[in-house]
Amino acid sequence: MINQDFKAMLSGKSKIRELSEFATALGEKIGYENVFDYSLGNPSVPVPDLYNETIIRLHKQLASMPLHGYSPSLGNTAVRGKVAASLSKRFGVPYETKHIFMTNGAASAIAHAARCVTKPGDDVITFAPFFPEYMQYIGRTGANLKVVPANTANFEINFDAFDEMMNENVQAVLINTPNNPSGIAYSEQTIERLAAYLAQKQKEYGHEIFIISDEPYREIAFDGRKIPYVARYYDNTLTCYSFSKSLSIPGERIGYVAVNPKAVDADILAIMCGQISRGIGHNCPSSSVQMAAAECLDITSDIRVYETNMNLIYDKLKELGFEVIRPGGTFYIFPKALEEDANAFCDKATKYHLILVPSDTFGVKGYFRMAYCIDTEKVQRSLAALEEFVNTEYPNRK
Amino acid sequence: MINQDFKAMLSGKSKIRELSEFATALGEKIGYENVFDYSLGNPSVPVPDLYNETIIRLHKQLASMPLHGYSPSLGNTAVRGKVAASLSKRFGVPYETKHIFMTNGAASAIAHAARCVTKPGDDVITFAPFFPEYMQYIGRTGANLKVVPANTANFEINFDAFDEMMNENVQAVLINTPNNPSGIAYSEQTIERLAAYLAQKQKEYGHEIFIISDEPYREIAFDGRKIPYVARYYDNTLTCYSFSKSLSIPGERIGYVAVNPKAVDADILAIMCGQISRGIGHNCPSSSVQMAAAECLDITSDIRVYETNMNLIYDKLKELGFEVIRPGGTFYIFPKALEEDANAFCDKATKYHLILVPSDTFGVKGYFRMAYCIDTEKVQRSLAALEEFVNTEYPNRK
Repeated sequence: MINQDFKAMLSGKSKIRELSEFATALGEKIGYENVFDYSLGNPSVPVPDLYNETIIRLHKQLASMPLHGYSPSLGNTAVRGKVAASLSKRFGVPYETKHIFMTNGAASAIAHAARCVTKPGDDVITFAPFFPEYMQYIGRTGANLKVVPANTANFEINFDAFDEMMNENVQAVLINTPNNPSGIAYSEQTIERLAAYLAQKQKEYGHEIFIISDEPYREIAFDGRKIPYVARYYDNTLTCYSFSKSLSIPGERIGYVAVNPKAVDADILAIMCGQISRGIGHNCPSSSVQMAAAECLDITSDIRVYETNMNLIYDKLKELGFEVIRPGGTFYIFPKALEEDANAFCDKATKYHLILVPSDTFGVKGYFRMAYCIDTEKVQRSLAALEEFVNTEYPNRK
Repeated sequence: MINQDFKAMLSGKSKIRELSEFATALGEKIGYENVFDYSLGNPSVPVPDLYNETIIRLHKQLASMPLHGYSPSLGNTAVRGKVAASLSKRFGVPYETKHIFMTNGAASAIAHAARCVTKPGDDVITFAPFFPEYMQYIGRTGANLKVVPANTANFEINFDAFDEMMNENVQAVLINTPNNPSGIAYSEQTIERLAAYLAQKQKEYGHEIFIISDEPYREIAFDGRKIPYVARYYDNTLTCYSFSKSLSIPGERIGYVAVNPKAVDADILAIMCGQISRGIGHNCPSSSVQMAAAECLDITSDIRVYETNMNLIYDKLKELGFEVIRPGGTFYIFPKALEEDANAFCDKATKYHLILVPSDTFGVKGYFRMAYCIDTEKVQRSLAALEEFVNTEYPNRK
């Protein structure tokens, strides 16, 4: 019999996808170049040449079995070693091969990490604003995702609300810095405070509380900022990474879980991921994609365009009177809408061919997200539309 | 806290993997060319040139976004269309794009198909001998996998035992033809009888019973045989396919679920797979691998070697007095061991550097599996070892 639970999900459409489809339909009518589509986080800068060159070289040179044969279930061993070495060198955390589990991007990394350190019925806490797929990633493990309300002053962690929500049933905390949708990178102070707080709660409750650190935007930092590497601050950290944004290869589905060598049971957590994968239909990312990504660990696509775009948009938003926190990284910005109902605000924006995502889907009301992973030329043209939109619709804003 | 359930799994090692590791260790000692490793189903013939050429061409010619950007969550739409067209043409079932969901191989296909048509607590029936990972694939959905004892006369379905096990709680039947480990391809008569039986039970119980048809060996057929295409015989069929064996690309993780257009809710089952994938960390196979596989739908690797190997082994086994059913396809054969305890039999074989897998792991006692996806030259050399083994250890066999 058809599973009624999954069938019921079909009626609830993702707001982001709905807007993206609207943008595509509008583009077909008025020309896609005239639609200012800020809906989707699909990287716009090309993959580094080295990635494509490596794929081509591997397919020309390697024999079929080493290239296309089964990977070990934790991932290609040499690739895992290279990931460990790169992370150790860059962040000073002494990972070894045994701490790395290769995944199909961050979605798969979180699916494994969450199952490693929770069981059905446990609580997992995350912080608004948050990526709405977390509801699925965590909820479908059988654990409950609880969301701490946003700290709208700066979108760092709302520690008072967090403390109120904390309880013995919490086995993991899921964080995302730099953050989708706010663009905020947590300060070192925030991460230190989080680590100290969780260390104390671990003692109090007598069980571990893991940080699941979702870090696909780690390499995209602005204003010369260094993004604090979460695992340096807290032993029980499972770092979930995706190469989707740093190498502009979201379609290739490649990432990893890195188990902090100081975590409880650090030597077996990656192997546990291998066991978990047997039950959820994951059996490694593509072998050739693993090998190619392993040659590009210390490079990125030319991601400078995202900072250029951010500056253009941020300056214009400030000029137009928006309340907005300057992003520390990612390719998102999260300004306050000019009326209470962000849905109404974003609906009006579509008249000006501006596709903005209302914040409700991210667990906070009254804001909107712009994903500025689009051409700078288009960003520039969109600013006039933005100006016309707010001057026409909100002439009396302060 | 670490999930104790998954942690406990670490002590239970897969017999096949254990044997494969033993073979590797033995190879390091005595030279790998002297180990007759029949443990693993890792295809030995190379990928078709067209696959590698397509990958190289795509990486040279396509822009970054269409090649490496996010695929739609059900898979690349053009690829799904090509899969549907190829299946329709080859098997006469009128699939359309909407019936195809792209997956990371058959493991992922079964993970999605099972969740589509069962809920936790439901029963799923399969037939011994069976691929032991089914325990994980089905058990981890929350459904119960029940195994019908083998029909050792010919390894077709044991219908009496099946009927005894059947009950209202059964929502799906998982079959695998051609079969791992027996090598048997179910006859058309068997499939017709299964279809008629299930159609009658659907009426009796008042709910659908789906066939989940795991078909990675569909293209590897012997003696000029045509493998009956299961979905032609039963409307509520979800066909789970992998290109791992037909194109020798198990590491690339690519396959699909094909929903029979005549199935109940046929128009929404693939979309449901997309919803399911959100909760299990699957988000499509690699975009470039999808596109390359789509160019190779109607070809295979040079799989004739498997039939050559089968004939060599089958003839020798018969000559040596083994009880063995002639395989109809795959690259497996499943003879009866020469003593009751297949584990003891396979242990003794290792003295002759023959790595055979005892049948207990496949849900039947007293047999062993040989995976003959290895070089024919090695198969030939192994036959002398096999002869020496049985003549020395079982001189008085009949």
